[in-house]
Amino acid sequence: MKTCEVVRYTLENPGDVSALKAAIDSGSVAPESIRAVIGKMEGNGGVNDFTRAFFTQSLFYMLADYLPGSVDVLKARIPCVLSGGTEGVLSPHYTIFCVSEAEDVSNLESVLALGSAMSRVLEPDEIGLMAHVAVCRDAVLAAMADADLSAEEVSFVQVKCPAISAVRAQALIDEGKSACASNSGQIMALSRVAGAWGVGVALGELSMDQLSDDAMLKDFSLLSSRASISSGLEIDRCEVVVLGNSNSWGGNLQIAASPMTDALDLSGPFKALEKLGIDAAPPLSQEDAQRIRSVLVKCEPARSGKIRGNRHTMLDDTDIDPQRHIRGAVGGMVASVVGDGRIFVSGGAEHQGPDEGGIVAVIAEVAG
Amino acid sequence: MKTCEVVRYTLENPGDVSALKAAIDSGSVAPESIRAVIGKMEGNGGVNDFTRAFFTQSLFYMLADYLPGSVDVLKARIPCVLSGGTEGVLSPHYTIFCVSEAEDVSNLESVLALGSAMSRVLEPDEIGLMAHVAVCRDAVLAAMADADLSAEEVSFVQVKCPAISAVRAQALIDEGKSACASNSGQIMALSRVAGAWGVGVALGELSMDQLSDDAMLKDFSLLSSRASISSGLEIDRCEVVVLGNSNSWGGNLQIAASPMTDALDLSGPFKALEKLGIDAAPPLSQEDAQRIRSVLVKCEPARSGKIRGNRHTMLDDTDIDPQRHIRGAVGGMVASVVGDGRIFVSGGAEHQGPDEGGIVAVIAEVAG
Amino acid sequence: MKTCEVVRYTLENPGDVSALKAAIDSGSVAPESIRAVIGKMEGNGGVNDFTRAFFTQSLFYMLADYLPGSVDVLKARIPCVLSGGTEGVLSPHYTIFCVSEAEDVSNLESVLALGSAMSRVLEPDEIGLMAHVAVCRDAVLAAMADADLSAEEVSFVQVKCPAISAVRAQALIDEGKSACASNSGQIMALSRVAGAWGVGVALGELSMDQLSDDAMLKDFSLLSSRASISSGLEIDRCEVVVLGNSNSWGGNLQIAASPMTDALDLSGPFKALEKLGIDAAPPLSQEDAQRIRSVLVKCEPARSGKIRGNRHTMLDDTDIDPQRHIRGAVGGMVASVVGDGRIFVSGGAEHQGPDEGGIVAVIAEVAG
Amino acid sequence: MKTCEVVRYTLENPGDVSALKAAIDSGSVAPESIRAVIGKMEGNGGVNDFTRAFFTQSLFYMLADYLPGSVDVLKARIPCVLSGGTEGVLSPHYTIFCVSEAEDVSNLESVLALGSAMSRVLEPDEIGLMAHVAVCRDAVLAAMADADLSAEEVSFVQVKCPAISAVRAQALIDEGKSACASNSGQIMALSRVAGAWGVGVALGELSMDQLSDDAMLKDFSLLSSRASISSGLEIDRCEVVVLGNSNSWGGNLQIAASPMTDALDLSGPFKALEKLGIDAAPPLSQEDAQRIRSVLVKCEPARSGKIRGNRHTMLDDTDIDPQRHIRGAVGGMVASVVGDGRIFVSGGAEHQGPDEGGIVAVIAEVAG
Repeated sequence: MKTCEVVRYTLENPGDVSALKAAIDSGSVAPESIRAVIGKMEGNGGVNDFTRAFFTQSLFYMLADYLPGSVDVLKARIPCVLSGGTEGVLSPHYTIFCVSEAEDVSNLESVLALGSAMSRVLEPDEIGLMAHVAVCRDAVLAAMADADLSAEEVSFVQVKCPAISAVRAQALIDEGKSACASNSGQIMALSRVAGAWGVGVALGELSMDQLSDDAMLKDFSLLSSRASISSGLEIDRCEVVVLGNSNSWGGNLQIAASPMTDALDLSGPFKALEKLGIDAAPPLSQEDAQRIRSVLVKCEPARSGKIRGNRHTMLDDTDIDPQRHIRGAVGGMVASVVGDGRIFVSGGAEHQGPDEGGIVAVIAEVAG
Repeated sequence: MKTCEVVRYTLENPGDVSALKAAIDSGSVAPESIRAVIGKMEGNGGVNDFTRAFFTQSLFYMLADYLPGSVDVLKARIPCVLSGGTEGVLSPHYTIFCVSEAEDVSNLESVLALGSAMSRVLEPDEIGLMAHVAVCRDAVLAAMADADLSAEEVSFVQVKCPAISAVRAQALIDEGKSACASNSGQIMALSRVAGAWGVGVALGELSMDQLSDDAMLKDFSLLSSRASISSGLEIDRCEVVVLGNSNSWGGNLQIAASPMTDALDLSGPFKALEKLGIDAAPPLSQEDAQRIRSVLVKCEPARSGKIRGNRHTMLDDTDIDPQRHIRGAVGGMVASVVGDGRIFVSGGAEHQGPDEGGIVAVIAEVAG
Repeated sequence: MKTCEVVRYTLENPGDVSALKAAIDSGSVAPESIRAVIGKMEGNGGVNDFTRAFFTQSLFYMLADYLPGSVDVLKARIPCVLSGGTEGVLSPHYTIFCVSEAEDVSNLESVLALGSAMSRVLEPDEIGLMAHVAVCRDAVLAAMADADLSAEEVSFVQVKCPAISAVRAQALIDEGKSACASNSGQIMALSRVAGAWGVGVALGELSMDQLSDDAMLKDFSLLSSRASISSGLEIDRCEVVVLGNSNSWGGNLQIAASPMTDALDLSGPFKALEKLGIDAAPPLSQEDAQRIRSVLVKCEPARSGKIRGNRHTMLDDTDIDPQRHIRGAVGGMVASVVGDGRIFVSGGAEHQGPDEGGIVAVIAEVAG
Repeated sequence: MKTCEVVRYTLENPGDVSALKAAIDSGSVAPESIRAVIGKMEGNGGVNDFTRAFFTQSLFYMLADYLPGSVDVLKARIPCVLSGGTEGVLSPHYTIFCVSEAEDVSNLESVLALGSAMSRVLEPDEIGLMAHVAVCRDAVLAAMADADLSAEEVSFVQVKCPAISAVRAQALIDEGKSACASNSGQIMALSRVAGAWGVGVALGELSMDQLSDDAMLKDFSLLSSRASISSGLEIDRCEVVVLGNSNSWGGNLQIAASPMTDALDLSGPFKALEKLGIDAAPPLSQEDAQRIRSVLVKCEPARSGKIRGNRHTMLDDTDIDPQRHIRGAVGGMVASVVGDGRIFVSGGAEHQGPDEGGIVAVIAEVAG
């Protein structure tokens, strides 16, 4: 029986993987059990955020000392989903998901299951377009198979999709090829949409024939309620991590997800904790706080320019990127509920969760 | 018997005072009753945030059509405490505090009382130094007298203090005069400290002989737990608004304040609402949400670089100012509790409230 | 015989019009002679730059004390073309263009002539689209008639065009109306394109039937070599200032313009000065420097991502807006040539001047 | 006879060292000849700029495949002086300085000589203080010995000094240790001052007994006219590269440096080129442009807030760091002179070159 363990590590800078190295050296983490890494880096989270690539390089150079295969082989095998931007109270960290064989000691009906997969390399002229949707869908299906999870059992799918720079897009256009957009912000958004739709189709929330390049960023009813997609230039494949609860896995962790109807929806994180038997009314007990292993949040700045009828200024700010604004705000809300800044908050929830809202997922230890 | 009414208005841009003008034209606001304005503008909140001066100019040009006295006379009479920065979910708005005579219709023991005062003009070489403390103290005492509030009855003191630019500071130094600091961020911080100490002395929390220029930004035990200070270049006096509950005032509003021990302290806003008879467990009822008239928050990025033991990145970010970071995060938390982005959040809580934490104050209608 | 005088003023903040007021009070500027204002403000130059509106309000409130007509009437009569962003060595300033009757004392063949015009108010769903082109063209023709300049005699046309926010664009789309784009940066760019084409058609460089909404930001061969367009939310009309040399005007000023093939083209400002009889080889003589009355620059970050084959990073920077980058760089170059930071530099040269390059125009006193 | 070769490489991102690897693989660069690397990375140039560390890691992992010694050994041997911030027209690149034995084929009297040295590791409580000055001085003397250059023969000294974060500084203070300052910007500045004074003492421009912690950032007459210092958190030693012209070296390169009196001093780069026999009057001939191998610039935003009497806004901008502003502007000026964005421009010229000005050094091939 497989079991998934989840451990969070902090880091002093994006090149610091010493905490995981120490855990491996001490025997508390078996390097061959590492199946996925999800992390929050301290760059700006945009196209020119190189903290993601720096961490990835540092991680795999370190792991290559413990695992067979070159750095490049490891990179192509273990998903490393990083999001930049630790605005406000957010704390740079990375979470290691390890899968191992274990005797089932818990009497829980259904516990955390994880599957991962890497898609094939996407061509630059596929990114953010329907071809990307199909590629991502296949990778999600592969990850579901890996986890032995049915579509209904999947709680949350975290994907990192490739993007291209505005300059690369212009070059494609000049070569007569397709480019999903010419503006960096929009390229990153369309890459997230393609990823979200790939998840939605794999989970049966959407069907391919409803979807088209034209409907992206237009028909916001076409959404996946369980997808959280980041995009970045540092990768060229879709990297997929599927999470759910399964009665064929062992252990004492569970995942619970909840939609957030908008960026002020405090009941979102309250409900996710409630499903895990944790009363979120502040202050959280020390004990409950320590049961929480991972928090994954997706959010976005409302396109309408208003939240509950009041104007926000995120979309027309030339100084601070809208995604930095929203990560800071929703991160502030969710971190205050769990009493911990080590949460993964990713902006850009286009076609992911309720329109203008988001999703919060929590993994916690539950009483067996 | 005096009564204080509190109304919030939104605005389309920092020069838009049309909502208040319409309220005056319709008779719902008597212009001569306006005793203070507290507002959140959408600039960067720093030295070069001109949205504060733009709004002030727009407001007083408009009011000059309704009130005796020139724009300059009005400016020197009515405190207009503005803070820049509507990061994340925060919504640009301004709140008008009107005081009028009214029959006492409520049976509440103690209700909202407001006093305001303007200090004399501060010289540039006094700003952020002990002379500034004394001037602010006197203005707070005058505002307390205006409200007929004792030190014990004061819940919250909102002050706007003058600052100077780095360039002006350098000129002072070159002239052989005092300048509290040579860096804009530090000048603004020291101006806030001087204001906070002025409040602390007026409220009996501190005594002048404990204080010195040298202890500013060093001995953080010297604090006022009821002061919220903003600083800016657009003014040259201390503008003071004192708020408390009094049994000699009428009306059905009350103010409640609560400390926040750190930037994740969700129990801060929960407790402030509780004191006003509002259960903050989400979702807030429509009815409770509408009872809330004003929310005033003070917060700061923890100097230690850590919140509950985890590293934050606010203090070493060359791209986004630390105060912008913290306003976005704590604003996200508090706005989610009250379900409304129209809250006043001011960064820079040096010597104000618990060290590395902050203060939240809420004004709400209470059942009579 | 008409003559155009040009005077530059500095300001301490965007609300400071004291220098012009002092000039009026001293009799050195006749307020009724003011025909146009072109200025560089210290905001971010983007959609949420309110320094432009603040200065405009301050200017017209002041002028209303000297001129007949309300603030609104004056605003609709005198073009006030402001560009935000004084990156690097650029110095906030505004230039007043005054036209008066004078005896012809110079023996120069052809001297500075100025015409101005205001278009009708543009509807939000016209902005950045072909309707905008036609409206701008008509205003340019009116300004040429005002100056009595033929198309050949026009050296440089400075236009400020209206823009809308991303949120307003979304509202238009929701109402089923046209919006040129949904992203603030792109709306501002398309507004500039429409303005540039309006100039191009008026000057005979382009014809309406070559142009279409679809060709905007696509066919960069459709350009005006004498247009410099800014866009901003603070106005709702096209405000046009046409400048050229005419033998029917008097005075001792001339204007010279020169294209810049790219952002490194130092020969652009050298050639413009040469046409005015000034040797730009550094250091500029004190005397020559004082002859220069105004410098107007248009520039843009090369879309190809390269300048002379080397990669630049302006287009993929999430921290600093591309237009801020390019204004700082080209401003640094041109200001070093004239030895003065009080130059007007406007970013966003789409369809204005050589593709990926820009234009520089200089007004200087010439020997009679 | 030793000779120094200088080659510039561009890179697609801060982890891209493929151009140098290709040069090594093709035999055009002998890896063991690499004596120093000076590069311009595309991060923000501040404390949280991780592009410098990312490049360094990428470079030394690559070199470790070709050279004896571990990554850490190589890092401690070869200076890698990186400056972040490619604002405006600046192009990310790195320059490799190789020293080899060669027959003297030129008939030039004095040609480029290079020496390098690494200081011992600095303790955090030494950084930015007088202890740092002494350590840097010793490293400069060692590098001069390495180059066999006398103080008079040295043209330019490029040093990278370590810095600490604001948070680390606070921790030092809490431990009762020394920290040069508590604000990141000021720590980085003081580290540069210490480096500059170390150079000044080594070159005989300053003597230790003139200097003190208190005089740093106060007495600006205490300067080195040949020092260019960067600081950053990614290193813990002073990394020194000394450049000069010597008649005991061979080759056909020379270095020429020139002060810039302020940020508009176009005659600075003109004079440096003139010393190398290049006429800078634009346009530069293709041939002359290709003779230029490296351009090193130091500059700073004038503390007085004015340049030639006109106000600049760099020092009071909450959105863009002052050093980013000045690099963009002076970079724009110097790059336009040499017609190439691949120049090294470093901000923060405190006590380096003329007060409020800077230095420009050019290495070019000269006719033999």
